[in-house]
Amino acid sequence: MAATIGFDFGTNSVRCLIVDIATGKELGTAVEVYETGEAGVMTDPSDHNIARQNPADYLCGMEITTREALAQAAQRNPSFTPDAVVGIGVDTTGSTPLPLDKEGVPLAMRPEFGDNPNAQAWLWKDHTGYAEAAEITALAAKGYPEYLAKCGGIYSSEWFFSKILQCLRVDPAVFDAAYTWAEICDYIPAELTDTTAPTVMKRSRCAAGHKAMFNKEWGGLPSREFLAQLDPKLGALRERLYAESYTVDTVAGYLTEAWAGRLGLTAGIPVAVGAFDAHLGAIGAGVKEGTLVKIIGTSTCDVLVSAELDRDVPGICGIVDGSVLPGYWGLEAGQSAVGDIFNWFVNSIEPGGKEQASHEELTSKAALLRPGQSGLLALDWNNGNRTILVDQRLTGLLVGQTLHTRPEEIYRALVEGTAFGALAIIERFEEYGVDIQEVINCGGVSEKNEMLLQIYADVTGREMKISLSSETCALGSAIAAAVAAGKASGGFDDFEEAQSAMCHVKEVTYQPDPENHNVYQDLFRLYMQLHDAFGVQGAATDLSTVMKDLLTIKERALAEHV
Amino acid sequence: MAATIGFDFGTNSVRCLIVDIATGKELGTAVEVYETGEAGVMTDPSDHNIARQNPADYLCGMEITTREALAQAAQRNPSFTPDAVVGIGVDTTGSTPLPLDKEGVPLAMRPEFGDNPNAQAWLWKDHTGYAEAAEITALAAKGYPEYLAKCGGIYSSEWFFSKILQCLRVDPAVFDAAYTWAEICDYIPAELTDTTAPTVMKRSRCAAGHKAMFNKEWGGLPSREFLAQLDPKLGALRERLYAESYTVDTVAGYLTEAWAGRLGLTAGIPVAVGAFDAHLGAIGAGVKEGTLVKIIGTSTCDVLVSAELDRDVPGICGIVDGSVLPGYWGLEAGQSAVGDIFNWFVNSIEPGGKEQASHEELTSKAALLRPGQSGLLALDWNNGNRTILVDQRLTGLLVGQTLHTRPEEIYRALVEGTAFGALAIIERFEEYGVDIQEVINCGGVSEKNEMLLQIYADVTGREMKISLSSETCALGSAIAAAVAAGKASGGFDDFEEAQSAMCHVKEVTYQPDPENHNVYQDLFRLYMQLHDAFGVQGAATDLSTVMKDLLTIKERALAEHV
Repeated sequence: MAATIGFDFGTNSVRCLIVDIATGKELGTAVEVYETGEAGVMTDPSDHNIARQNPADYLCGMEITTREALAQAAQRNPSFTPDAVVGIGVDTTGSTPLPLDKEGVPLAMRPEFGDNPNAQAWLWKDHTGYAEAAEITALAAKGYPEYLAKCGGIYSSEWFFSKILQCLRVDPAVFDAAYTWAEICDYIPAELTDTTAPTVMKRSRCAAGHKAMFNKEWGGLPSREFLAQLDPKLGALRERLYAESYTVDTVAGYLTEAWAGRLGLTAGIPVAVGAFDAHLGAIGAGVKEGTLVKIIGTSTCDVLVSAELDRDVPGICGIVDGSVLPGYWGLEAGQSAVGDIFNWFVNSIEPGGKEQASHEELTSKAALLRPGQSGLLALDWNNGNRTILVDQRLTGLLVGQTLHTRPEEIYRALVEGTAFGALAIIERFEEYGVDIQEVINCGGVSEKNEMLLQIYADVTGREMKISLSSETCALGSAIAAAVAAGKASGGFDDFEEAQSAMCHVKEVTYQPDPENHNVYQDLFRLYMQLHDAFGVQGAATDLSTVMKDLLTIKERALAEHV
Repeated sequence: MAATIGFDFGTNSVRCLIVDIATGKELGTAVEVYETGEAGVMTDPSDHNIARQNPADYLCGMEITTREALAQAAQRNPSFTPDAVVGIGVDTTGSTPLPLDKEGVPLAMRPEFGDNPNAQAWLWKDHTGYAEAAEITALAAKGYPEYLAKCGGIYSSEWFFSKILQCLRVDPAVFDAAYTWAEICDYIPAELTDTTAPTVMKRSRCAAGHKAMFNKEWGGLPSREFLAQLDPKLGALRERLYAESYTVDTVAGYLTEAWAGRLGLTAGIPVAVGAFDAHLGAIGAGVKEGTLVKIIGTSTCDVLVSAELDRDVPGICGIVDGSVLPGYWGLEAGQSAVGDIFNWFVNSIEPGGKEQASHEELTSKAALLRPGQSGLLALDWNNGNRTILVDQRLTGLLVGQTLHTRPEEIYRALVEGTAFGALAIIERFEEYGVDIQEVINCGGVSEKNEMLLQIYADVTGREMKISLSSETCALGSAIAAAVAAGKASGGFDDFEEAQSAMCHVKEVTYQPDPENHNVYQDLFRLYMQLHDAFGVQGAATDLSTVMKDLLTIKERALAEHV
């Protein structure tokens, strides 16, 4: 038996998954919530934009989960021993950069910075750099439009340089003490293989291309001149960052004796170059040309690959050569909040009971409603809009409520709002020539919420498939590990072969109901009216029929089923 | 001692108030919830538009409350005896018409119609006639624009002819059996004085002018030709309705022996012609030229009087000679839901606890928020828009919610939404030359909710006064009774004299805070953008800055008070 390990560093916890290379079967798994902060996230009640993580939690979490997963694998599979593990892959959240010293040690691990939130990892959902993001966007729009073309036209506050520039502005002591900055998907494989020194650390193509405007066309990272215009110190940082980046089939290095000891594995096995969870999750779900993988959790990531691209797709947050599968353009889109919107409603607005019980109760009532019946329509922008409008400074909207509106109607409208957002993304891709023949869903929400999948099928008019594995990110990392290891070590020589052996979808799929789809087409038209009216500058739209159209759709929905 | 009785027939209950004529002091009072339906309203879960009342409940309620109020008055005031009562006044909800037979007996009291909802009183908030309202509006707009000019440009589904025409369409048996239709404010004084026969029943000017397009200019009710175009039977009904209407200083008739016996009063005392609750409420609150009376309850009525009017005020639901004070134009405006919106949120959406406890808890948290701090903005149209847009087919809207939005923030935004709606009405009046120098509030919500009054002061930039009496409608009816009785019977010969003796405001008033007013001016501008975009046909408005402006206002509100 040959196996690989996939580590999945999520927003709140790290998972270790041990997978049988031949079948993709899960041999053992374990998960550990990060120790620091609230559910692993350091926040600040006075500034909702702040979200940081203690990098020591990542290392500690790997050790605990690997030992647990190995024990479980051995218990469940008598023939399994730790030396069956021939490689390690790593996926993480991102952009989650952290400052490192000249030896590649996180500043957060030095006593003088241990308590300083600015020396920690700046979690993807940290939005403190929104002004810096606007500044970067403005500067690029003026003189460097090519930088923006690959990242949706707007540089996000969630991304690498927005965060580093914000750190430079608010905490120059941390900035000055940092020799370089790395994404945690760069740092973790390097840490495991003693390649953290900036000269040897292999940087993730996925992170570099999607979050740091890295592109061979213009010689890698944005020019020193560009960065220096934002701040001379940022310009000077450029040469201490990186000049090359690597796809996930690349070996980052080989497991050190020290880490082999801590984890209970064999020293010298290859560790693949890291990537973001969504990208490796797409691999784990079976992404290939024509397949859209939707990873639906607190937020949503949409991932596609394409061998050829005629032109850039505006509003798509990332278009990067090799960011998912080597040899293909990786296309990334997404919605800034999906499950988070439902959680907000259940936990903050309608606290009828315990969280899960409320979700279940609302879902069971909402599932009985017909499309259009509530008369409600919601925009899914409670956490901004990531794809198409690429604007964090958009907010939620609910229209159509009367004195009779029920919580389950709002809940369903929120789910439908995210489905309309999903369809807007699909239409944007197809408009620019990226065909979508299949949709595979994965992630926590798609596992749990049948109503949501049926609504997504009805709204998009497409079949919704679900990945068989509930841990596609970790599985994708394990697949990358198998490819990095290569056939000679019991792995595979390419992703096609590896995915064909290791990826599967569930038998149950969700088919669109044509009648429901028709109603949703009407509602989607209204959604797009609101989308453009509130989201697109200068789009003066006549909204005076929106409320009446919603009432008409509602009355039709009620009349047809008396 | 001389006293009068004011009966106030509300949406859920009837109140009897016995008042000392010399001072306006309350001698005794009692209230009784109508027996039929849910809290006195007959509804139908399959059609939210239906709201009816059993007219027998009105009569029964008068008897119970009068006896209780008389007992209380005697107990509290040893010198009081029932023969101190020298007159009766009546206010009711409206338009609340009911079908009567040739003797003036409600069809609902005949066995063959007893259970038929269409034979009952059609409560003001019954909206089943919305299609008929649109039909009446369309016909009038085409050939009879003068009919619409006095009622805001749009004939409402809440009004007299919409309901009668709807009855004709859905239940011709009831329509055919009805000799005539009356407002309950016509019927109740007539019932007490044996003047229900259509030839002698004195119809309320207030009801006729505000709800039935009655105006001396065109010879009373709309022409037979107009009504016949809607339906020949409606045309034929016209001559069985009425040709004259009367102000509230008119004596409708004298209390019969039979009713004197039932109520425990002296036979032969005068009963004043009835009017709607808001109009008599305005009198009870002290309405005079330059004074806006706001009656804030589940919905809001705004009442003004003006000796002269240059031109009609578009979007104001009623402009009627003598509908409030004889000799003045009575102007009526309003918001279709105010307290109802807060109740909806507390009872349906955020059921954290018992109704009153939740209101109090949310209010105490919401009161700590600064204007603009929530980033939220709400339209107050959960029950349509009564004034300016005059459109029942508008619905609620909330914008600005994030994943951090709290229930108390939404609650405050809903209160603020109603305040912006109130300011829009004030601005509309002033734009058309009706000066407002004073605002007196009354009604349940203004009694209970200090935060709301402060927000109304801050939003409008005007001092908010509160009527001393908590029963201004019943007090207004008692004042009308005192004027109808006249000085010779211990009453008054005119309203000025009567109000000066009987109306008072509380010592505590709410002063606008100039800083808050400034923030609210910014928010009001955004409110009007949404108001016009969603409410005015063809008003293509650029809304793309609304969400961002709300965030900017929010950040300013937070920054100024760090």
